[in-house]
Amino acid sequence: MRIRLDIAYDGTHFRGWARQPGLRTVQGTLEAALARILAGNPTLVVAGRTDAGVHSTGQVAHLDLDEAQRARLEQGRRTPADPVSALAGRVRGVLGAYPDVTVTRTSLAPEGFDARFSAVWRRYTYRIADEVSGYDPLQRERTTSVRARLDVDAMDAAARSLIGLHDFAAYCKPREEATTIRTLLEFDWHRAADGAVVANVRADAFCHSMVRALVGACVAVGEGRLDPSDVVALRDEGVRTSAFKVLAARGLVLSEVGYPTDELLAARAEQTRARRTRE
Amino acid sequence: MRIRLDIAYDGTHFRGWARQPGLRTVQGTLEAALARILAGNPTLVVAGRTDAGVHSTGQVAHLDLDEAQRARLEQGRRTPADPVSALAGRVRGVLGAYPDVTVTRTSLAPEGFDARFSAVWRRYTYRIADEVSGYDPLQRERTTSVRARLDVDAMDAAARSLIGLHDFAAYCKPREEATTIRTLLEFDWHRAADGAVVANVRADAFCHSMVRALVGACVAVGEGRLDPSDVVALRDEGVRTSAFKVLAARGLVLSEVGYPTDELLAARAEQTRARRTRE
Repeated sequence: MRIRLDIAYDGTHFRGWARQPGLRTVQGTLEAALARILAGNPTLVVAGRTDAGVHSTGQVAHLDLDEAQRARLEQGRRTPADPVSALAGRVRGVLGAYPDVTVTRTSLAPEGFDARFSAVWRRYTYRIADEVSGYDPLQRERTTSVRARLDVDAMDAAARSLIGLHDFAAYCKPREEATTIRTLLEFDWHRAADGAVVANVRADAFCHSMVRALVGACVAVGEGRLDPSDVVALRDEGVRTSAFKVLAARGLVLSEVGYPTDELLAARAEQTRARRTRE
Repeated sequence: MRIRLDIAYDGTHFRGWARQPGLRTVQGTLEAALARILAGNPTLVVAGRTDAGVHSTGQVAHLDLDEAQRARLEQGRRTPADPVSALAGRVRGVLGAYPDVTVTRTSLAPEGFDARFSAVWRRYTYRIADEVSGYDPLQRERTTSVRARLDVDAMDAAARSLIGLHDFAAYCKPREEATTIRTLLEFDWHRAADGAVVANVRADAFCHSMVRALVGACVAVGEGRLDPSDVVALRDEGVRTSAFKVLAARGLVLSEVGYPTDELLAARAEQTRARRTRE
């Protein structure tokens, strides 16, 4: 039985998503909480392995329960419990001790669902305070500050010019044998109601540090150090450059992960089974 | 020369506004920063003495500079400086070490201005996460959580019924010889874009814990434990009751302080001078 977990966290005091011995990470914290409830070694598979300091309001992971774990959940105190709602209640109880991470939804995963491999896109937002918005102490842990008056229209034009299927090597931290070809589906900037300058970025997937490099290039445009047309020219050169900075993690939030409809997931799972039967 | 300071802070790690020996307070932190810049014992007069844990995006204080302090500010490194902008720059520099408090604006106070006694109203907001909005770890330090699905329309109706000039003793922590008669100018509730339930409260002034008692009574309405009409009935009984709770400080933000126009302040200052001359 596969469970889907929707997860939100303040990344400030986590060393990123991925479990690392001796470090406080989101995966490590959640798996330790699940181990208290389920016994065994519950392992999470996640849509977006966020870096240290990156936040999330829409992370998605899955967890497989074996028969023993499921039976344990069904042993309600008085009446046999639905294992999904029993898990939801117990996770909420255990995570109450950690105010910076929460499971916003616990649900039975649809047929064929895999939090990582079924995901068809990821959406991030990035928040910046500039001289116009001013510095808001209450939002400081999810906002990067710059000392400039940002030209949001120029940033928006630059961002939109990058949309499409391209090699984003110039905006990626190089890793051997990892592709840097990505489909950027949305990339735009606006000034939010509270004055902050906010990016919306959606792609099929992102290579390492890509969002923070893309927003860094746009900030160089907003400060007048680059022309809007430069961001495409830099991308087409295909190499990392010092023309812009990779911005800090604190402004970055993984806000949403997109999946196919339940029907499409089930149809694909059926195809895979049929192919295996033939082989 | 009187300076107006507009101040924002995250109240989480402050024991309120007012200076207290041995405790970290907003006033204490700001006055220590100002003492490094100005020498002497700079003293702030403030519009709203917020309690421990209460935040602000729109606090206002004033500070009087004597001739020596003013001269010191004018001694720019290269050219004589405007004392107001010199102070603004140095305050920003010193407060850079304290990310949870900032001076958003430093300006010459208009003729007749007193941050406390000229203020004609104070506005607060209060943010609540409920079962509908869910818990957002990124906003936890400025949001109070309740385990209920709040009926925002009923809360809004209750809040609006309290508006006007009344004795709010039932919503005040009793203090000897302090009046509990206040003019509630605005009080309403709405669900914000992110799902949180938010109150807007404006009054000429508030007695101690009044905003947190008012929002507590409305939450009892939103949970169905009180009728909207009960909040006026309780107010008219004039005594503190256990029918509702005084909510936590973390959801509360002092967002704005209202002052008369510069012309009106100047006219009043002139009247006062004329009266003193006659006496």
